[in-house]
Amino acid sequence: MLAGHLNAHAAEFLRALRRHREGSDAADPAQAARSALDMRRAARRIGSALHTFRPMTDTAWADPLRAELAWLGSTLGREHACAARLGRLLEAMERLGSGASVPGQRDDPSAASVRETALGIARAGALLERQLTLARTRAHSAALQALGSARFHALADAVALLASDAPVVPGDPYEHAARAARRLTEAVDALPLGRAARPYNAEAAHDGQDSPWHHVRLLLRLHRYAADVTGGDTGALAEAGGALDRHRDAADAGAAAAAAARTARIAPATAYALGVLHSSQRHEVEAARFAFQRAWRQAVVAR
Amino acid sequence: MLAGHLNAHAAEFLRALRRHREGSDAADPAQAARSALDMRRAARRIGSALHTFRPMTDTAWADPLRAELAWLGSTLGREHACAARLGRLLEAMERLGSGASVPGQRDDPSAASVRETALGIARAGALLERQLTLARTRAHSAALQALGSARFHALADAVALLASDAPVVPGDPYEHAARAARRLTEAVDALPLGRAARPYNAEAAHDGQDSPWHHVRLLLRLHRYAADVTGGDTGALAEAGGALDRHRDAADAGAAAAAAARTARIAPATAYALGVLHSSQRHEVEAARFAFQRAWRQAVVAR
Repeated sequence: MLAGHLNAHAAEFLRALRRHREGSDAADPAQAARSALDMRRAARRIGSALHTFRPMTDTAWADPLRAELAWLGSTLGREHACAARLGRLLEAMERLGSGASVPGQRDDPSAASVRETALGIARAGALLERQLTLARTRAHSAALQALGSARFHALADAVALLASDAPVVPGDPYEHAARAARRLTEAVDALPLGRAARPYNAEAAHDGQDSPWHHVRLLLRLHRYAADVTGGDTGALAEAGGALDRHRDAADAGAAAAAAARTARIAPATAYALGVLHSSQRHEVEAARFAFQRAWRQAVVAR
Repeated sequence: MLAGHLNAHAAEFLRALRRHREGSDAADPAQAARSALDMRRAARRIGSALHTFRPMTDTAWADPLRAELAWLGSTLGREHACAARLGRLLEAMERLGSGASVPGQRDDPSAASVRETALGIARAGALLERQLTLARTRAHSAALQALGSARFHALADAVALLASDAPVVPGDPYEHAARAARRLTEAVDALPLGRAARPYNAEAAHDGQDSPWHHVRLLLRLHRYAADVTGGDTGALAEAGGALDRHRDAADAGAAAAAAARTARIAPATAYALGVLHSSQRHEVEAARFAFQRAWRQAVVAR
């Protein structure tokens, strides 16, 4: 069961790697990007399985492999994350801009201040685009460099071994999958779900308290991947998982807006727009916590 | 019934006026401020009654008086509103400031940026304090000037007439109070309550759509005051009314933050803090709409 799972995802990894090499970056960048994400997806599944079912692996061999898979996953994911963050922020900016000049806003003292606000939004958008495009380009180069490195070739060799002959020792996969589920439940129980259930609690105004939620997001993924191995059904948790993805995305986007506001010599109107943007993303963090607790409770009831 | 109501509140108005003159501004400013608010409160009740029960009044006499009462009410209320707005904004600033440097915020690239953020919050607070204190002082002077004007003396004479002999013509007060209740219900029905009931709908991000809610707030007050005349019970609507008060306060505070951000030559960090503040107040506007629709539905069910 575990061996089959590792075989399958290792094979998927190798296929994605071959596609990536064939449709090389210059020839078909979209194909290369898709293949990189496929590789990342397979790497995450393998790494998760090695984590959850660790007692059923040769740990001297599996533990270092898991660390390398984590390195590759984060390296390959960064470009995509930058692009998604920029998309999210520009979309939020557009919503801010479209409302800033609605005819209903009659209280505004002058047309000049409306223009000033619109200009600030446009400039903040341009600043974010510049900064996140730069970060994305750097992430892309880093990913290409990683895929050409000796470190990656060693990793690919290890995965090739998994594809043919996964070194799995006997054990009870159900027991290990159940432990992953238990860890998730315990972590969720430790979250302030009661507060999150009261809408507009303003608990997420600051970035300081995000980590436990990010941690639950990872545990939820481990649980989902473990259930893939044992044939468990985690469909009821899809909505809760989506809420935690939005939680992470909004937190990251808010941090990017705050970071952009620390750029030297920006205009006050630009800084103002970034402040509004940061706050609106923190608002979405709060909304995602609300959505998570609701989805989680529904999933628990449905179980 | 209507005559007795007008008598009572006119007498209350005159008592407050006497207290205001006795504890004159220099001698006891707190007493003077309380008396001014009492006068305003009585003026509002009388004006509301003249509005709702208009067919039972000598309109040639009552309509101009009502306009004068509205003038006095808004003149006397402005100082208090500035003080309340400043209090609300400084409190929100404090919440922002207390979270900006929590140890949990490890993502922040440097202590310097944390200091910069804290400095921005402090400067934004100082700017708001300066602007709103100035507005408050102006409102105070305007109120004193109004209370010494010939216009006010004419108004006080008209109220004195009401206190002894309210010129009321026969009619059915219940019918008029019922019309006030109907107007309120119709205006509430026209509000987007369905959207407001979905938490985190982001419908209030902009200032443009506040007016219908402000209007319902006034209609709710008219209904409440009309019920005072006819002995109706509006206790079930207290929570809904409170939500609309918070809605108005948050909208006004948000506008004050946006106005402060248009001050020339402010630092980017100050503008950023004001952007966060504006957004957080708009967030509270949204929260107040959510609270209103819930309280309203409960009140309707309880009826």
